[in-house]
Order: sequence, then structure tokens, then C-alpha cells
Amino acid sequence: LVRASSTGAGSSLLDPLDTFPRRHHGRMNDAEVAAMLEVLNVQSVDQLMNESIPAELRATQPLELPEGVSETQALAEVKALAAQNQVKESLIGMGYYGTVTPPVILRNIVENPNWYTPYTPYQAEISQGRMESLVNFQQMVSDLTGLPVANASLLDEGTAAAEAMAMAFSAGRGKKRDFFVDRNVWPQTLAVLETRAKPLGINIKIGDVSTFDFAGHSLFGGIYQYPDARGIACGNISHFVEATQASNGLAIVATDLLACSVLKPPGEFGADIVLGNSQRFGVPLGYGGPHAAFFAVRDKLARKMPGRLIGVTRDSAGKPAFRLTLQTREQHIRREKATSNICTAQALLANVAAMYAVYHGPAGLRSIASRVHAMAAAFAAGVAADGKATSVSVRDAETQAFFDTVLVRFDSPAEALASANAALAADINVRVVDDVTLGVAFDETCTEATLAALLPAFGSRLTPRDALAQAELDAIPQAALKRESKFLTHAVFNRFHTEHELLRYMNRLQSSDIGLQNSMIPLGSCTMKLNATAEMIPVTLPGISAIHPFAPLNQVPGYAALLKEFEAQLCAITGFSAFSLQPNSGAAGEYAGLYAIRAYHEARGETHRNVCLIPDSAHGTNPASAAMSGMKVVAIKTSATGEVDLEDAAAKIAKHGEKLGALMVTYPSTYGVFEAGIKELCAMVKEAGGRVYMDGANMNAQVGLMRPTDLGADVLHLNLHKTMTIPHGGGGPGMGPIGVVDDLVPFLPSHPLVDNGTDAESAIGPVASAPWSSASILPISYMYIRLMGSEGLTNATQRAILHANYMAARLEPEYKVLFSNEAGRVAHEFIVDLRPLTKATGVEAGDVAKRLQDFGFHAPTMSWPVAGTIMIEPTESETKEEMDRYIDSLLAIRSEIADIEAGRISIEDSPLRNAPHTADVVTASEWNRAYSREQAAFPLPWVRQRKFWPKVGRVDDVFGDRNLVCTCPPMEDYVEADE
Amino acid sequence: LVRASSTGAGSSLLDPLDTFPRRHHGRMNDAEVAAMLEVLNVQSVDQLMNESIPAELRATQPLELPEGVSETQALAEVKALAAQNQVKESLIGMGYYGTVTPPVILRNIVENPNWYTPYTPYQAEISQGRMESLVNFQQMVSDLTGLPVANASLLDEGTAAAEAMAMAFSAGRGKKRDFFVDRNVWPQTLAVLETRAKPLGINIKIGDVSTFDFAGHSLFGGIYQYPDARGIACGNISHFVEATQASNGLAIVATDLLACSVLKPPGEFGADIVLGNSQRFGVPLGYGGPHAAFFAVRDKLARKMPGRLIGVTRDSAGKPAFRLTLQTREQHIRREKATSNICTAQALLANVAAMYAVYHGPAGLRSIASRVHAMAAAFAAGVAADGKATSVSVRDAETQAFFDTVLVRFDSPAEALASANAALAADINVRVVDDVTLGVAFDETCTEATLAALLPAFGSRLTPRDALAQAELDAIPQAALKRESKFLTHAVFNRFHTEHELLRYMNRLQSSDIGLQNSMIPLGSCTMKLNATAEMIPVTLPGISAIHPFAPLNQVPGYAALLKEFEAQLCAITGFSAFSLQPNSGAAGEYAGLYAIRAYHEARGETHRNVCLIPDSAHGTNPASAAMSGMKVVAIKTSATGEVDLEDAAAKIAKHGEKLGALMVTYPSTYGVFEAGIKELCAMVKEAGGRVYMDGANMNAQVGLMRPTDLGADVLHLNLHKTMTIPHGGGGPGMGPIGVVDDLVPFLPSHPLVDNGTDAESAIGPVASAPWSSASILPISYMYIRLMGSEGLTNATQRAILHANYMAARLEPEYKVLFSNEAGRVAHEFIVDLRPLTKATGVEAGDVAKRLQDFGFHAPTMSWPVAGTIMIEPTESETKEEMDRYIDSLLAIRSEIADIEAGRISIEDSPLRNAPHTADVVTASEWNRAYSREQAAFPLPWVRQRKFWPKVGRVDDVFGDRNLVCTCPPMEDYVEADE
Ligand SMILES: Cc1ncc(COP(=O)(O)O)c(C=O)c1O
Ligand SMILES: Cc1ncc(COP(=O)(O)O)c(C=O)c1O
Ligand SMILES: O=C([O-])O
Repeated sequence: LVRASSTGAGSSLLDPLDTFPRRHHGRMNDAEVAAMLEVLNVQSVDQLMNESIPAELRATQPLELPEGVSETQALAEVKALAAQNQVKESLIGMGYYGTVTPPVILRNIVENPNWYTPYTPYQAEISQGRMESLVNFQQMVSDLTGLPVANASLLDEGTAAAEAMAMAFSAGRGKKRDFFVDRNVWPQTLAVLETRAKPLGINIKIGDVSTFDFAGHSLFGGIYQYPDARGIACGNISHFVEATQASNGLAIVATDLLACSVLKPPGEFGADIVLGNSQRFGVPLGYGGPHAAFFAVRDKLARKMPGRLIGVTRDSAGKPAFRLTLQTREQHIRREKATSNICTAQALLANVAAMYAVYHGPAGLRSIASRVHAMAAAFAAGVAADGKATSVSVRDAETQAFFDTVLVRFDSPAEALASANAALAADINVRVVDDVTLGVAFDETCTEATLAALLPAFGSRLTPRDALAQAELDAIPQAALKRESKFLTHAVFNRFHTEHELLRYMNRLQSSDIGLQNSMIPLGSCTMKLNATAEMIPVTLPGISAIHPFAPLNQVPGYAALLKEFEAQLCAITGFSAFSLQPNSGAAGEYAGLYAIRAYHEARGETHRNVCLIPDSAHGTNPASAAMSGMKVVAIKTSATGEVDLEDAAAKIAKHGEKLGALMVTYPSTYGVFEAGIKELCAMVKEAGGRVYMDGANMNAQVGLMRPTDLGADVLHLNLHKTMTIPHGGGGPGMGPIGVVDDLVPFLPSHPLVDNGTDAESAIGPVASAPWSSASILPISYMYIRLMGSEGLTNATQRAILHANYMAARLEPEYKVLFSNEAGRVAHEFIVDLRPLTKATGVEAGDVAKRLQDFGFHAPTMSWPVAGTIMIEPTESETKEEMDRYIDSLLAIRSEIADIEAGRISIEDSPLRNAPHTADVVTASEWNRAYSREQAAFPLPWVRQRKFWPKVGRVDDVFGDRNLVCTCPPMEDYVEADE
Repeated sequence: LVRASSTGAGSSLLDPLDTFPRRHHGRMNDAEVAAMLEVLNVQSVDQLMNESIPAELRATQPLELPEGVSETQALAEVKALAAQNQVKESLIGMGYYGTVTPPVILRNIVENPNWYTPYTPYQAEISQGRMESLVNFQQMVSDLTGLPVANASLLDEGTAAAEAMAMAFSAGRGKKRDFFVDRNVWPQTLAVLETRAKPLGINIKIGDVSTFDFAGHSLFGGIYQYPDARGIACGNISHFVEATQASNGLAIVATDLLACSVLKPPGEFGADIVLGNSQRFGVPLGYGGPHAAFFAVRDKLARKMPGRLIGVTRDSAGKPAFRLTLQTREQHIRREKATSNICTAQALLANVAAMYAVYHGPAGLRSIASRVHAMAAAFAAGVAADGKATSVSVRDAETQAFFDTVLVRFDSPAEALASANAALAADINVRVVDDVTLGVAFDETCTEATLAALLPAFGSRLTPRDALAQAELDAIPQAALKRESKFLTHAVFNRFHTEHELLRYMNRLQSSDIGLQNSMIPLGSCTMKLNATAEMIPVTLPGISAIHPFAPLNQVPGYAALLKEFEAQLCAITGFSAFSLQPNSGAAGEYAGLYAIRAYHEARGETHRNVCLIPDSAHGTNPASAAMSGMKVVAIKTSATGEVDLEDAAAKIAKHGEKLGALMVTYPSTYGVFEAGIKELCAMVKEAGGRVYMDGANMNAQVGLMRPTDLGADVLHLNLHKTMTIPHGGGGPGMGPIGVVDDLVPFLPSHPLVDNGTDAESAIGPVASAPWSSASILPISYMYIRLMGSEGLTNATQRAILHANYMAARLEPEYKVLFSNEAGRVAHEFIVDLRPLTKATGVEAGDVAKRLQDFGFHAPTMSWPVAGTIMIEPTESETKEEMDRYIDSLLAIRSEIADIEAGRISIEDSPLRNAPHTADVVTASEWNRAYSREQAAFPLPWVRQRKFWPKVGRVDDVFGDRNLVCTCPPMEDYVEADE
């Protein structure tokens, strides 16, 4: 009897066989690896690692993590943890509500790789499906908020509010510094605003809209919540909008989409910006996330809006096509002082929310809203009529309008506590507003049984139906606040209300898009690796997904244990002392981490240390984040060989002296090499009193082989959606936790409502609305590490580097690999320089990208970090067979370029410039191309069996072509301040 | 505030809104319904019902079922039921084993509508993906069993054994009547064989292979199990094969696929037929099913094999293509005395098992088998060395070989009980063989912890590793039984071992196939309605899926309650007194039901009542089932208007007099009309002493509107995979429970091992291996009924009839609707007669079917029940929009036919004859068709947005064209016996 699995010390025939690393990256000793090593002319993987990575940077010890466990065991463990969390009916509200994810959406979007694995839709022609859905999201937000332009999407409500504030600040050119915040916004929104305001020098003025002296302040804007934190939908919204605008500020309103289906929407009151969270449109609570925040503006503000915006354009055949319209974002982010760094957002959840609206339609949403309101009204009436509470504060004195939330005030803390406990005894969490006030927020999942339990808990003897009969439903909302305008009138919201129709609609959309379920997506810097099913399973377990972020900590021991263990895993991998799991994207991590460095300097009385050195090869989010944390960006040059110019660094350090705050550096560099000078660079900065922020986007090249702390990093964010297998979701969700060394721990983000273990005194405040923001996707990364274990993770890194070197070596004869080290080796990704070919033939990087679609492939990262190039990152999760197909496609394209070089065809007539080829084009009777239909559609023999037809022809979008990395523009736009 | 949901008495704003009927079939009062009524020129749905259904047949009362509950509530209820079942580690074995469904297969096949909604792959060109997978299944079975030809698939191991016996019987031309059964086959296999043998007049000879007097019997075959029920892999297999064949019988071996990866396979011993269950290849236990049985034969027996067989053929372009090869099945089923009625099988589960093999590959399977064996060996060694048991009976005296199962004999019942209880205390179920013998069957899910719990429970103090060290692994299996031959050497089993590769392979396959997620599939008699996600969710809950069929009944109160409630639901719908949930397909239900009628007559001393009257419009399974239950088929004619010819019926009844056993009739008839004479017909038969079997395939036209019992039915099977939303799975699973009136209850199928509530004395014995066979899919139908409720179910039926009438009316001007009632109305389906067009133009039904693929549609049922026609059943779950597209496609096709009629194009040159058009063809440089590329590929404007490209051109298959219904041939082949 043969034992086929790998053996190690103490291994036994009894060991489990469903081990994971071989499913993630294959076996280290197989024929494929041997064949790749042969091409690279090395004897072993170790030899290649030695040639790629400077010896002095290598970790001296294996990762201090247990060996990986089997898929079955890891799943059993995580299910046991999830089962420890108590799934209650959480009527805490505060922006997070129970909701029903229609099963057909749960299974066919949330749990479907066709939707969760694709990348941000930069390659428009093979991303039409999810862009159509995101346009639905935008339309829905626009309709419900009553404003003409909406994006898709922002991260969460708190950061959306902060983005709005920053946008208003910048619209006021930073001259006015006061920002009004109504005291009845969510407390977490206020706290996130306060964090964000500080480094920008904004003064937050908290007040009551009815008494605040608008004229007496120099306001650039203000924010008001409607319905507010007390549940009141207040007629004062008009006053707020008018008064704010009268002082030349932007009027920002945070709202609730469901409420907007029955209440007159903020846009109709003249608000400039309306934002909020679309969570209750079918997106599970997830202990805080992920959910898609929404953001809508008046027309004239469209170009200043942060976040991703999908637009309609035309393709090469003149037919309508969707595309990411980057213009507006570029405009705001490229400025010297960027006001937003948002990159990865919440596309998957925006799609869920949009599909929820498509499924329910306008009448359905109104029904849901009306029922939710009826519950609240019945509860209020029941308690008021008959309860023991002294006052039920639910109505605006003037309008008497409220929506889903009822606050109940008691005579004594003891009485309040008794009611809260009685609710808890019925497995219902209510909100503890203060020691004599409880809040109850009703939602779609509430039933008559909810009321039947709550009414007695609050001392009422009325039955739900009797209470409902006593409620003055018709008076609420009063005419003044009642929505009269139509919404969701587009056909898409009115056609797909049966499950078959919705299923088919989703299926049609997904078939237009390339995701990892189709083929490899070797996007440099994006690490499109396997998102394994076993990693995804925890996300939708009730114990993970159905938990309110402000649930009492004693209800969530499973989450506590998992988060603690996960933090320990990340510390073991990176060497840091602690991690904050709050930042909800890489860019959010950058901002939080740099801000922590700022806070550190400040705490030491060195507020002047505000210069941040950033190599000019850096990702666009880096300088933007620096600007947001109040730092001044100074670029360091990169040498001709792609290394950070240490001399230039030394000069800049010397020049800025005492003002040096931080170095921000990506490792291995965005040029795809392990630079030898990293330790020296970090040491120089520290010597001069600065701290080192390492951008962890490329951690997939480090894990197990080196540690950021050994290299000199003080802070680092991990893009969990790159290195740690959270799927990209078509543009999010992601998570960007930050690790810090000891003396920076006190500055990690806190939370105003939940004890997340930080020191609120020294902490920088929250950078997101929920304590661990998108908590429900953290188990994905946790599972990955648990499944892979020390050896598996290390092997994965080795294989990622092997794969990049293999692809580079096979392409090298025909293409120029831009940067490599002295041994000719690259890291886990590499840049192919197309500029010589462009010069010779006119073929641009975009032509290569579009032509790849005809082969069934997604392009590499385009023109970043070097314009006119493509950056290839195969990751460890691809087989040689798949990489060979990709290579063969690029080589076939190279020979098409050669045809142009040789004058056999002109660039305009070539299949490159005319790519991609749709079925419409290739099947048209008319064919007057200079190449055959077969060459157009099936340029290599195996393409026939795998043919993926781009849905539209080349999209007309010069902007898009130029900035295909994470919607964030190249660093070079910042290389100015210091020259 | 608006309340959009339907209101009724007592309805309240507090009622849940996630009601299901509108998701299943829409709203009854919407604009679509109004538009359809207008086309039909009726005022109301009621009026249409009155015109379609004879008044005297209508139910006088609404269904006695509760109203439908919300999706959330139904899911909560079923989850609570599932949670009541205790998920233990069940090491009971007996053909059912713990297994790990790789998560990537679970999510992307089992839980994916692309795989579970398609129909049996009769339309080859749009079913290439699942046929490729089924060929993998066949290849895997063939490789592992060591026989050249395998099918895909049979229902379960017991019925597969019965099919083998029947096949051997028929191979021996029914002359020899003795069939040897080794006493060590599974007891449930023996019991199913006994049930099946009786009506065929087969004498089962139970014996011990080593002592049985083969020469002394007139054997047509024999069956032996390897490894046997004691766990022994016995060298006697050679003797069995030789002795059976020496007596000119077929040697049948039941085996275990996993064991075959390490043991010399039965085929290599010369077995003629090898069968078994592929469950342990990744298919959840499911409390008995569904799982795919396998069946492999020697070359010369291929054409006699029952079940579906996929083969490779060529398409119109000469490229290889898969197709269902019906020839062999036809041959066996068309005979006067059919030996098999198998129609719906277990395609979905065959695909799961095949993918499991693709994922693990040969080395992986060997590793799993070796580990399972190591567990068993360690356990045996531990108990033998150190346990309290007196003997460990695990080895064949001669070969010393066993695989996964160990029997332990104790000195006393008390000791045995103590060990069983100790195991149970560790949450492990063992098998109770007899009062002093326990059995333990190890499986893939067992771990060292399993052994660590079991060894002490069996009195051993050895640790698992010490026990393993004592086991003589190398001696087992001994050389004589050790597998030396290679298997799974095809590339497909060796390429997709990473999760990415497997995911992409599955994704590529599914993209070749049309399922309900693409478009409507109006297959007459097949009822391809919505398979809602909420209905599917229970299937993979652990409390439903991870239960062994022979688990003690006290561990499964949730199942007990659900099955009881489900039976009550079915009784309420049909009017019967009881249901048997055992038959695992419609055909199995027919056989069981007819056999129950036979048993009834026999019990009354009327064994001579063996004539079964069947209208000549009946489905092919009907006469086949009658033959299998020992009845003589007598056909009744159908009149020119499609009605059963009552005069002919009367004549036949008179002619057969005392011999009249039963009438078997489908209602509404397979001609798609509610015949007025049904009550009279049934009454005539009963009058004459016969009983009425009603084929429930068309129950979708009755539910809520009439009851089979009111019409006169004594027995009826329900195809749950038609009427009750179990998805078709690409050809199975299904379930065919039978309902009976009071005096037939005693004859319902029993089970030898589990008390299923029947009277073993009078019962006909088991017709399947597990007590409720595919128990885990019953919750699908249960959920459907719970979600729809009385009104929802009734509305669905009304809408199914409305839809059929609407489509018929819209097609009528251009096509001839073959049968309708006096008011011109059809039932829930209708036949379109193409014969006049065929006569005029040469266009055949097959041309229309293939041309529909170019529009993105699956053809209706072809040439059944009337050759040269198509039968359309839209079901209630389609919108008018979708039906209109289908209608428009058929009308467009009609105008293409008109072009031929008018001489504008010849049939050979027409797009009809050349359909379907692949992308390869339409994009080829060469185009010399008489119509444009656009007409070929995009014959209507909306096709572009929804284009589905058939993967291959028309498959060369005359047989296939002829018999496109459920692989079962038309009744007309039986119209002989009586003439
Ligand atoms: C080098 C680098 N830094 C930062 C980011 C921003 O990360 P996120 O998109 O998670 O905000 C990216 C994203 O691609 C990146 O490549
Ligand atoms: C009228 C009729 N009877 C019986 C059957 C056989 O049912 P099953 O495929 O479930 O065995 C069918 C299947 O289509 C049918 O249409
Ligand atoms: O509102 C409806 O979903 O039909």
C-alpha cells in the first residue's frame, strides 16, 4: 500500500489526507517545478531563492506557526468558533440592521466565485456584467437619495462621512476650517469624523441643528443625519440644508436607503451630498462588515467625488458599454494635497444591495419599509399606552415623524436594565443609549413574535395587533416628510421579481465577466491567488454573519478567540507586536499607520516631524494617505536599475532634518525586485528620527522568507485581499490591518463604543465605523493561514517567486523585462517594458491588454508603476500549464507585433489595435479586416475549447487606459512638491 | 404608507413579506396575467379553468394544507428539524460511508444551479459539459472495476443488483430460473433482489460460495460481494466467477470503488457484471441518498445494459461530440417483457463522484484507500492484541485480506452492548451485526481521534499508533488480491489537482450546457419548474446530509418529523391514505405501485389478475414497470381526438375478465388534455375487479384543482423531480413516492433493517436499499409545499394551465396544436404537430429542436408521445416575457419553414437543417451557406444579448432523435401483445 502524501517527522498513515497546500499551489517536488527550474537553469528552488533574495534579508527561522491542518479540521474548528457566538435578534440599530439576503442572491452572488473572484473592472470589455450591476447600484442610490450622481461604492458610513467632509473642505479650498456636525449623528460617525479632521486641521463643531449658530461660524460644510440617531426624521433637515448652504458650505446628509423609500429623500431638500450604508439591502451584518457605503452628490460635484464611478460609454462598434470613469477620481486624487485615498472598495456588497433592489423593486421596498415602520409604530404605541416607561421619545415635535427606531426613557437605571434584560431573555439585543434610555430599531427580519416578546419586556400588556391598532400609522410620516416622488422606475427594477428571472439575470451578467474561475489574472501588485472554498465557507455561517457589530462582547467569544488568534498569526508572519484589524482597505491601513506615526511624534513633542519620504515608484495611495494624515510628501528617486536611489534618500533626509517624520516604502519594490538596500534605507531614516511605514501590498513575496520587522519596518499594512486570499470581489471588499512595533502600539485605532483593546487616551481614534470593520471576512485569511501552516505559507512564497521568474525567463527572449537583480532574477512579479515596441510599431500597452482578451485572458497591471509597461504577477496558485497558455498568448501577440515591425500589416489594421473582437464583429457578414476571422477570435488552437467572448468591443476611454491600477494614479503626479 | 403584498382575512401589516408564491410563479393579479387572459379571450383565470377542466372532476374543497410561510420561516423551521438529528461518526458501513465532499465541489456542483437544474442530456449539443463529466464517471468505473463498459448511472446498489439479475435472467432467455446469492452480500441488497425476483419467477438460492453446489443448480447467474458484508476480500471470488460461468450463468460482483484502488478488481477475475455505489466518492450520506450506483459489464453485454450510457460520436463538422447512446437501452427496454424501467437516474451524483476522482487522481484515491485500510488494520490489531473481544473476524482464512471493515465477536451480548455503548458515548455509531458481534467500517473522515476513542471502547489499551505498528499492513491485501494494474491514467484524472484547475474545469464544463439558469426548458411531461434556492438549502445541512441510513431511529427525530409531515402533505394533496417514500424514481414508483396491486390481488387469492391495461399514449416506463411486476400489458387505443377510447377499454376489460389486474393511466393524459372520461374509465376497471394505477407525471396540472383519489386512482406515484421541485440534476436524482388508498396500505414497501412503519408480513419488500432511499432530497419538496401553502399550490397549477393555453393560443395560427378539448383548451402542456410541415417541407421535429438552440433555447419534448411532434410544457414558473421569447423563436422558425414551403430555400440548405450553428462555423472564413451568418447565429434581435453558443454542431444520432423522452421509448412498441 502506497502512501502518496508528503511525509515528515512523526508523520503516520493515520494523518489526514485532505491537506491544503497542494490544492493551493501544488506540490513542491512535482514535475512542473522540475520543468520550471530547468528553464531557469537552477538546481533547486533554494538556489533560485538565493539568487532572488539578498542573503542578509532572509529570515533565519521558519515561521512560528503550527503546521497546516486539513480542510476538514480547519472547517470543524472555525465552525466551532462560529457556534460560540450567540446569534440574537439584534435591534441595536445605529446603522446596522437585520436583513434577509434572498437565498438566490446568497448562493449565486455571495457564495459564487463568478462574482467574488474578479478584479476591479478596469478591463471594461470583460467586466460588463458586474458594471451593469454597479450601475444598478448607482441608479438605486441616486433614486432613493434624490441626487443625480452616485458612486459604487465607499467603504462604510463613517469613512463615507469623512470623505464627504474632506471633499467639502477641499471644495472650500481649505480656507474655512469649521465643520458642523449635528449631535444626533451616529456616535461612531462622529468619532471617525474627529479622527479624520485632526490632521487636516478641521475644527468640528458639534451642535444641535435647531439652535446652532450657522452664521457665526466659518463653515465649509456640515453633516446632519436623517432619520437621526434618536430615530427621528426631522423637518429641521430643511433648516440644516439652507443654513449650511447660506454660509457657503456643503450640506451633507447621512441617511438610510430603506427610510428613503417612504420619506422625502435628502436630495429633495437640496442636500449637496447624501451618504450612508446600504447594508440593510440584503447584506449580512457580519459583525460590522463588509457592507457598501453609498455616496451621492449634486451634478456639479460629480467630478470631485471620491470612490469608483461606473459610466456608460461606447465601444468600437458604437454600441453602449460600461466603464469605470476615472476622470473625476483622478482629478481629486492627483492634487498636491489629496483628500481621498480610496482604492479597494465594496463592489461585491454593492452588487448584493443592488440585486436586492432589483429583486424587490420599488413596491417591494416600500412594503418592507412600511412594515418596519409599522413595527416601530406599534411598539411605540404599545409602550406609550401601557408601558412602564415614562416617555417615549420617538417623534419630532414638529413633524411627528420617525421611521424604524424608538427610544424609550425610564424613570430609573434599574427599570431600564430590567427591560433590557427582559428583552435579552427573549434573545433580543436592544440598544443601551444611556442608563435610563433604551433604543429599539426594527428591521426586515422582525416578526409579530418580536413584538410579542418586546412589548411585555417593556411593560406593555398589549398584543402586537392591539398595539398596531393604537398606532397612528397614517400620521407618520406627516405629509411634509412623506415621499411623493417615484423611484426605481427603470425596467431593471421591475422585471426580475420571480426567482427564475433574477437567477437568469445574475447568470447573464456573470457570463460576461472574466474571473479566476475562468483563467489566471496575473495583475502585478494585486496578487490574484486562489480564494479557496474552504476559506469562504465561514463567511456565511450564521455565527459569523448574523452578528451586530455592537453586540455585547460576552455574546461573541468565538469572534474574540478568532480575532485574537488571527492577530497572533499575523504577528508571527511579520514580526510585529500587535495588529489593528480595523482598517478596511490597504489604503485605510496606510492612513491609519501613518497617522499612528504622526501621533507617536506628537506624543514625544515632535509635531514638526511631518515629512514623509516616498520613492517615486510608490503606489498612488501612498502619497494620498500621507497627505490625509497631515504629512508632506517628499519623493525619493529611483535609479535606472529600479532601485531606490540611496544617495537621493540621504540627501532628502539631510535636507528635511528635524522635519523627517517617516519613510513609506513598498517591499519588494513595486518594480518587482528584492532591493538589497532596504535595510540600509530604513536604518538611515531611523537614525534621523523618522519611522518606517512599509506598504505590505507585496507581502506575498515575503511571507516565510523574510520579515518586515527584520528589514526595518515600524508599521505595515497587509492587504488581506492580496496576500491572505480574501477575494477581490470585483473591486472589494478587502481589509488592510496594520502591524506595529512595540512603541507604536499605543497609537492604534480605538473605537468609541466597543472596547477593542486599545488605549483610548493615546489612540488615534477610529478609522472605521465598526471596531473590526469588515470582521466577517477576516476568517477567510485566518483559515488560509490555519490551512497552510508554516511550511505551506513558505512554500507558497517560494512558488510565487519561482512562477514569476519562470514567466519572465520564458518571455525574456521576446520581451524586455524591465528590472531584475544582479543575478537576473525578479521577485514575485516583474515589469515587461513595451515602450521599445511602442516606439518601433505604435503598439501600446493597451493594445496588448485588449488583445489578451481574445485569448480569454485578463491583462496584467497596465502602465503602473511605469507608464508604457505591463506588470505580471502570476502568484503561486497557478499551474505551469496555465502560465504556459498565458506566455504562449503573449508570444503570439509578440509575433503579431513583429508583423507590424516587418511592415506586413499596419498598426491600425492589426488585430492588436482592433482587439478585443466580439462575436458580433467576427460573425458579421461584412469582414474587411487585414487578418482572418480565425486569427481574430481563435489566435491559438486551444482558444477554441476555452473561448471567452468579450461582450463589447474596445471601450473608448483614454483615461481608463492610462491608470489601470486600483483606480489610484501613479506616484509621479506627486513628484513636484520637493523639486 | 402602502402595503404591496396580498391581503387576506386576518392579514396584518406585521405579516412577513418574504412570501414565496410570487417568487415561484409571480402574482395572480398582475399585468402579465391580464395580458394572457386577453389573448385567450377569457375574463378570468377561473373561466379558463372551467373551460379546461371538466366541472365534475374539480375538487370541491381547497387543499387541506396550511397557508405558505415566508422563506425565512420555512428555512428556520427546516434548520430546526435538521438540528434535531444527531450527527455522529457513523462507522456502520454496509455500503454507506463517511466521505469528504471537497468544498469546491460542494459549492460549485452540488449547490450550483448550472449543474443541478439541467435536464437529461438529450439535446446533446447544449449538454456537452455534463456529458464529458459523465464520461469521466464511466471511465472511472470502468478503470476501477476492471471492465470495459460502464454506464452513468443506476439508482442505488440494491436496485443495480436487481437490474443485473434481471439482465442475466433475460440473457438466459428466462429459461433457467435459479439465481445464486452469496450469503455475505449486504442484507438490503438481498432483500431488494428477493422483491424483484418474485414477480419474475426467479428462484433465489442463498448459499456460501465455498460450499454451494453450483453444478447442481440451473443457474442463469449469481452475485457475490467483494469485499463482502463481513469486510473480507475473499480469494473465493475466483471460484465464484468460474463456477457461475461454468454453469452458463453470468457472474455478478458487487464491489466498493475505493477498495478497487488497492484490491485486484472484480473485472480482472473475469466477472461479467460489476456494480455498486459510488457514494463514498464525495457524495454525502444523506440518510440514504441520493447517490449514484455504478454498473459495468464485459463488452459483449454492453447492448443489454440498463441505464444511461454516454458515448462519443461526431458532430456535423466531423468533430468529436458526446451523446447519450440509447441503442443499448432501447434494445433491452423495447422487448415484450422489459427487464428494466430505469429512466431518471443519478446524474448529479455521478458527476460529483466523477469530479472527486478527477480531484484526487489515482494516487490520491490510493492514498485514501490505504489510510482507510490502515485504520481498519490498526483497529483490528489493537482489539486482537489487547481487547476484551474473543475473536476478531476480519480475515479470509486463505488470503488474510480485508479492506475497511472489521467484525468483532464478543463472549456475551452484554459485552457487545457495552462496547457499542462506549462507542456511542464517543459519538460513534458502530454496526450491530448480531447480539454478540459488532462491525466497524472505517472511512475517509476517520482520524487518529476516531481510533483513540474506539480502541478503549473495544477494551484495547493500545494507542492508535501502537496499534498501527502491530498491524501487518504489508500482508494485507496479500499479493493474490493486490491491485497491480494502473487506473485513471487519462489526462483528466491527472491535471486538475489544484483547486484553481478543478474550479476552472467545472466552470468550463458548465458553460457548455443550458440549464434553467439560462432559459426556460418547456419539456412536456418533465415539468422543468423553478428549483428555488430556499428549497435547496436544507439538502446540504449537516443534520440532513451527514446521517447514515441505518442510524438508530432515536438519533433522527428531525427526519422522522419531517418525513411524517411530508407524507401528510402529499396525502392532503392527493387524497391518499398513506405514502411510501421509498421509490427513488417515477419508474420505481410505478413498479412498486403495480407490485402492490399484484400483492393485493394475491392476498385475496386472485393471483390470476395479472393483466394491466395501458393506453397506447403511455410513457414507456409504464409497460416496462408492468412487465417487471409480472403483469401482462394490454394496450388500449386512443381516439383520433386524443382521448382514451372508452369503447376499446370496455372491450379489453370484457375480454380479459377475471384476469384484469389493473389500469395504468396518466392524468391529464400525455396528450395534454383533461379527458372527461377518466372517472368513467376508472369506474369501469374497478367494477371489473381491477385497480387503478395513476401515473402522476402530470400532477402539476392537478394539484389543488382535483385529486387523483376523486378521479378513481388507487395508487399514484409523484415524480417529486417534476411536480415538487426537486431539480432534475442533469438526469437525476429524483424521487417517486407512491400514495395508496386504504386497502393497499398493507402492501407498501418495507425495509429489512429499519422499521419504516410498514407491515413486513404483507409488504412487498424493499424496492430500494435505504428505507426512504434518497431521503436528503425530500426536504426540497417538503419546503416547496410549506412555502407555497394551499393557495400558492393551487395558483401554481392554475398558472401552469394558463401558461400552456397562452403559448398554445399564440402558436396556433402558425402551428397545429394536436389535441385540445371541446372548448379548444389544453391542460398544462400541449403537443404541436409538425407532421404536416414535415410532409410539406421535409423539416423534421429534430430540425426545429436544433434550430431552437441557436435562439438559446432547449427544445420541447421530442416525438413523444406522438412521433413527429413536439410537446410543450411551460410550467408556472415562467414569465410572459420568457414565454414570449420562446414563442417568437418558434414563430421565427415557422417563417424559416415558410421559406422552404415557398421554395426560397431548400431544406438541405436551410438554417433549420444546418442547426445548431457553433461559433466555429459562424466565424469561419469560409461561408457558403444560403443564409447569412447573422441569420445563423442571431436570428432575432434579442438573441445577441443572450447568445448561448452550442459547443458542437449537430450530433450524428438517429437513435437519439427518435427517443428524446427520459430515455424511455414510446408505448407503441408494446402495442402488440394484445392485437
Ligand atoms: C502597492 C500598493 N499599495 C497600496 C494599495 C492600496 O490597497 P487597497 O486597494 O487595499 O486600498 C495597492 C493596491 O493595489 C497597491 O498595489
Ligand atoms: C408520463 C411519465 N411517466 C413516468 C415517467 C418516469 O419517471 P422517472 O423518470 O422519474 O422514472 C416519466 C418521465 O418523464 C413520464 O413522463
Ligand atoms: O414586488 C414583487 O416582488 O413583485
